[in-house]
Amino acid sequence: MAPLRSYVSGGWQAPAEDGVPLHDAVTGELITSVSSKGIDLAAALDHGRRTGGPALRELTFHQRAALLKALASFLREHRDELYALSARTGATRTDSMIDIDGGIGVLFGYGSKGRREMPNDTVYVDGNLEPLSKGGTFLGQHICTPLRGVAVQINAFNFPVWGPLEKLAPAFVAGVPTLIKPAEQTSYLTSRLVELILESGLLPEGSVQLVCGSTGDMLDHLTEQDLVAFTGSASTAQLLRAHPRIIGNAVRFTAEADSLNCSILGPDGKAGTPEFDLFVKALANEITTKAGQKCTAIRRAFVPTELMDDVSEAVSARLAKVKVGNPTSDGVRMGALASLEQREEVRRSLKALMEVGRPVFGSPDHVDLVDADAERGAFISPILLRVDDTSCAQPHEVEAFGPVSTLMPYTSTDDVISLAARGKGSLVGSVVTGDTAFARDVVVGAAAWHGRMLVLDTDSAKESTGHGSPMPHLVHGGPGRAGGGEEMGGIRGVLHHMQRTAIQGSPKVITAITNRWTTGADRTVDGVHPFRKSLAELKIGDTVVGGPRLVTQEDVDHFAEFTGDKFYAHTDAEAAAANPFFDGIVAHGYLVVSLAAGLFVDPAPGPVLANYGLENLRFLTPTYPGDELTVTLTAKQITPRADAEHGEVRWDADVTNQNGESVAKYDVLTLVAKTHG
Amino acid sequence: MAPLRSYVSGGWQAPAEDGVPLHDAVTGELITSVSSKGIDLAAALDHGRRTGGPALRELTFHQRAALLKALASFLREHRDELYALSARTGATRTDSMIDIDGGIGVLFGYGSKGRREMPNDTVYVDGNLEPLSKGGTFLGQHICTPLRGVAVQINAFNFPVWGPLEKLAPAFVAGVPTLIKPAEQTSYLTSRLVELILESGLLPEGSVQLVCGSTGDMLDHLTEQDLVAFTGSASTAQLLRAHPRIIGNAVRFTAEADSLNCSILGPDGKAGTPEFDLFVKALANEITTKAGQKCTAIRRAFVPTELMDDVSEAVSARLAKVKVGNPTSDGVRMGALASLEQREEVRRSLKALMEVGRPVFGSPDHVDLVDADAERGAFISPILLRVDDTSCAQPHEVEAFGPVSTLMPYTSTDDVISLAARGKGSLVGSVVTGDTAFARDVVVGAAAWHGRMLVLDTDSAKESTGHGSPMPHLVHGGPGRAGGGEEMGGIRGVLHHMQRTAIQGSPKVITAITNRWTTGADRTVDGVHPFRKSLAELKIGDTVVGGPRLVTQEDVDHFAEFTGDKFYAHTDAEAAAANPFFDGIVAHGYLVVSLAAGLFVDPAPGPVLANYGLENLRFLTPTYPGDELTVTLTAKQITPRADAEHGEVRWDADVTNQNGESVAKYDVLTLVAKTHG
Repeated sequence: MAPLRSYVSGGWQAPAEDGVPLHDAVTGELITSVSSKGIDLAAALDHGRRTGGPALRELTFHQRAALLKALASFLREHRDELYALSARTGATRTDSMIDIDGGIGVLFGYGSKGRREMPNDTVYVDGNLEPLSKGGTFLGQHICTPLRGVAVQINAFNFPVWGPLEKLAPAFVAGVPTLIKPAEQTSYLTSRLVELILESGLLPEGSVQLVCGSTGDMLDHLTEQDLVAFTGSASTAQLLRAHPRIIGNAVRFTAEADSLNCSILGPDGKAGTPEFDLFVKALANEITTKAGQKCTAIRRAFVPTELMDDVSEAVSARLAKVKVGNPTSDGVRMGALASLEQREEVRRSLKALMEVGRPVFGSPDHVDLVDADAERGAFISPILLRVDDTSCAQPHEVEAFGPVSTLMPYTSTDDVISLAARGKGSLVGSVVTGDTAFARDVVVGAAAWHGRMLVLDTDSAKESTGHGSPMPHLVHGGPGRAGGGEEMGGIRGVLHHMQRTAIQGSPKVITAITNRWTTGADRTVDGVHPFRKSLAELKIGDTVVGGPRLVTQEDVDHFAEFTGDKFYAHTDAEAAAANPFFDGIVAHGYLVVSLAAGLFVDPAPGPVLANYGLENLRFLTPTYPGDELTVTLTAKQITPRADAEHGEVRWDADVTNQNGESVAKYDVLTLVAKTHG
Repeated sequence: MAPLRSYVSGGWQAPAEDGVPLHDAVTGELITSVSSKGIDLAAALDHGRRTGGPALRELTFHQRAALLKALASFLREHRDELYALSARTGATRTDSMIDIDGGIGVLFGYGSKGRREMPNDTVYVDGNLEPLSKGGTFLGQHICTPLRGVAVQINAFNFPVWGPLEKLAPAFVAGVPTLIKPAEQTSYLTSRLVELILESGLLPEGSVQLVCGSTGDMLDHLTEQDLVAFTGSASTAQLLRAHPRIIGNAVRFTAEADSLNCSILGPDGKAGTPEFDLFVKALANEITTKAGQKCTAIRRAFVPTELMDDVSEAVSARLAKVKVGNPTSDGVRMGALASLEQREEVRRSLKALMEVGRPVFGSPDHVDLVDADAERGAFISPILLRVDDTSCAQPHEVEAFGPVSTLMPYTSTDDVISLAARGKGSLVGSVVTGDTAFARDVVVGAAAWHGRMLVLDTDSAKESTGHGSPMPHLVHGGPGRAGGGEEMGGIRGVLHHMQRTAIQGSPKVITAITNRWTTGADRTVDGVHPFRKSLAELKIGDTVVGGPRLVTQEDVDHFAEFTGDKFYAHTDAEAAAANPFFDGIVAHGYLVVSLAAGLFVDPAPGPVLANYGLENLRFLTPTYPGDELTVTLTAKQITPRADAEHGEVRWDADVTNQNGESVAKYDVLTLVAKTHG
């Protein structure tokens, strides 16, 4: 049987040796073998930098996001092949869904966010303009541009599809090529995933590479522009983090490591309450899903002391119903661990935990199986341990990376916050309670030790995605023992792959670099009203000036009558003058912006299709009857849509009075056709 | 002479030995000595965590920011004492201003930003709500809460006042106590600064501590909740970053290291142009300010090949006019390096640089001095080197941390971008040009290697703060050789000291944790119009429902006439129907929000003082004549101001039609009095 090949430097390459044999987790059958010997890893990195990077950087964020969306659709059509291989890793159909559909879901998520939350451009503008001078000729603006290196993924065995995809998606949108290094045990599944990605023909060459086997000397070739994202054990994370190249080049290194995640049942969650049932169900699910091989699984379950017996019984009763065995057999709810070695590892950890705790359900050495052999397959029983003395170290420090949780009591809100913190940094913690004050206290008290915290109550129970599921919208990663990393988190994950640079310069320069018109930069008034220009014709800085329009007392009276907005500042001269901000009757802010629209709108049908919104409106100077308003409307940002005949135009609106003071400033948002016609 | 004391664990403690002698950089006179021997550093860290942290966490962001502002004012009154000591470090009056007034400026900056950009609360809400379910019962929201450890500063000798303050300010606003460890050479100045901070009595005990001398075993006591921010050499940064505790606990570690910063003269900057003069002046200033002892100083000056001679002559001419000597003497523009050891270090680096370059101005071994002795004081001449072969390594890799720059030629835009990148990561780069296209190309091309890039042109020259000055609004730090860190950057620097946590739960839970009303959470309609409630009475969720109001064709016609907004979608039935988004004539968006105000406003004088703005307005469904509008206005966020009798209230406005569809959603911003009367 040929060993797995790597896809590097533009082609599939076989290793120079057979390497490590890989076995079916369920049957023990030999599947293939894996090695990276003889693969030129320096060349692979260089290929990513020289081929993948430039190809990606030619695309806009929207174009990259659209490719991810197309890839997600392609993979969804081919997921059955992935499911078949996934079963061989020990995964049930539900486990495979989490891995495969979950991974595809991340691609869809970034496909959507990249287009909704980033510009159709190659430079990302980060945060607000920073005025750095009184006269307004010198400004600051942060931008983000893609790092010029490769995003190296070093993945864990437990999510051979989701792992690579959740790391690929933000890197790809950022414009940074990826090199995937899967964990050996399940690399045959990741290999098939990468084959499918290549078969899709969607992604530019060099933007995705695959190295099966060990990392070899890869890290020795990292530059200051590369990144490393690791998922796996805390001890390996430490080894990698201390690599001289990573240290010496300040390489961005993120680790997402197993942690002692906790779930907390609130004092209100007595037996018989819906919260009690939610907690018990969630805990049993977290123990058995993926046979507990999730970095986010609940390792420590904290319940009020008086509920220890009730919870222990209820969880045991649920676990007793879980059929363990061949994941392709009917009714099986929990499959195998990924390998026999992994089972040995879990048994070792259990031994340490059982020095201070006793199993209230399950045993490390026995499990009843459906259609499977306990010697050849990597099976183990779900196990619930009970520890009553929470002061001992083991349950807060020893992680059995399998279907194992420890149930422990707490006595007060402060006590349970301290216990949660004893994990020294977790990916996720959860609180099951109907008491929002308790939820707030625990979350605010323990958030500093958590990357994610989930509160489960009867309001959200039906739609909650649960304790164990990272979401592309939200950061995944936690402080301390959890590795100190952050992955995903929406656009945050994209920006992680980019360099943030503070740009300083004149408005003209900031405009040129950001492709956003900046107050103080040149305005173009060329005799053609900008509403008459299609997206193809309109340029940043195109401007129309309208007015002046006199605002009379009658206007204000009339507007109050017409709209019903008779707020005293618009209707009662004496009361208005007593207001700390006004000298007398003022025009409605809504009147000011309505009149301004009357001054800048060009009425005839044309490329401007609709006003879909308005942002950052500030009323800066009161408008009194007798004031004259002028509006200056300037094209600020132009965002053509890839998938429509129109795009968005953001306009800078500045309404001034007869003294040149700004009365109101805001952004007007319109939809504009790409062409006339 | 007694050695410097440390301020730890609530008191000043003398070291157990005299330690290292510290000398006046100008006269060589012994000032004091420094050691941390015998100081219990584990206890100091613990004191910060147990005393400083809890005290800070009791304050809101606004309260912490206000304390920083008060401290800034206090220090400004006492800066003369700091100036006197600063001269002994070799600094001229201008150098001292950069250090002392610059540091005070950072406190003012964070005092202002903390109040303008953060809530008057203890939890920071980061980014937008993330809908995680179709039914809206399960949402995500990132929050930031303070880390529960200590922010350890390990500072460089060159900015003994600015260094500690620029690191203290964001940590303090975040709610994290600081431990300052100054570089030994100039620690007598930092020590006086800390004395002044303590004399002010403004900051809570434990929020600032000082350890003079070496770091000793401090790092061995770091937990996963502590942070380390280092400024200094790249080699020390690497040593610290690899510390087992930092690696093992994933301690947040930022380094801001010396780098080979470049400045680029554009091809348009020929002799005789204003850009040429700006470049020459900036380069000469960067060489001589702080005697070149700035991490941000220009080490590499790139000019078009044909301008090499002109620039070389012009810079030399300027340097020739710079008087070097005792910084307190009249006319002296450049003082001494911080110590004789530092001068030896600079001479060593110069030796390496001179293997490939020749001085066109200055010599490592000779300088004419005013009122000073070249043997006792750490003086050196400003030096401009010229290297014509840019392919050699030294000028891109060897930093002489003194008044030294290397002038080099470039041949094209691509060439100069590659040369800039050869610094392998810099704090700052600058471009002097009047050609915005060149500026954009260079900035976008080289930004991935820079933390900050400044473009200097005639528009901004008068107000520009210059190549070498980090600003509190902007990030300071760069990738790779520059350390990979980020400091300041406005609120980004505050958030660096906080844990970002993704919170998941029902709207009720998200509301309780963030103190912001969230769509789907409970609304309170209690018979009292919320405009009749003062800040003291108003609660998140207080709601008024107004309407329905019928919108007629006459309303639309009238509004078009009255405002002048006769856009065809409001006036021409046929053209409106041809618009892809409308079925016929639609009401103006401005009409919808104006009518909505008429429905929610309570007119009589009361606590609501003014509508100062509107945010995130989106028109979601067209309003046609015949539709009936209802508005629901809900108190979303309440921000009392510390320094006024009023505060801000943000209201959620949801305008719906007779079918319950949202027509428009937005936030209304008002000012509301704290009490009635």
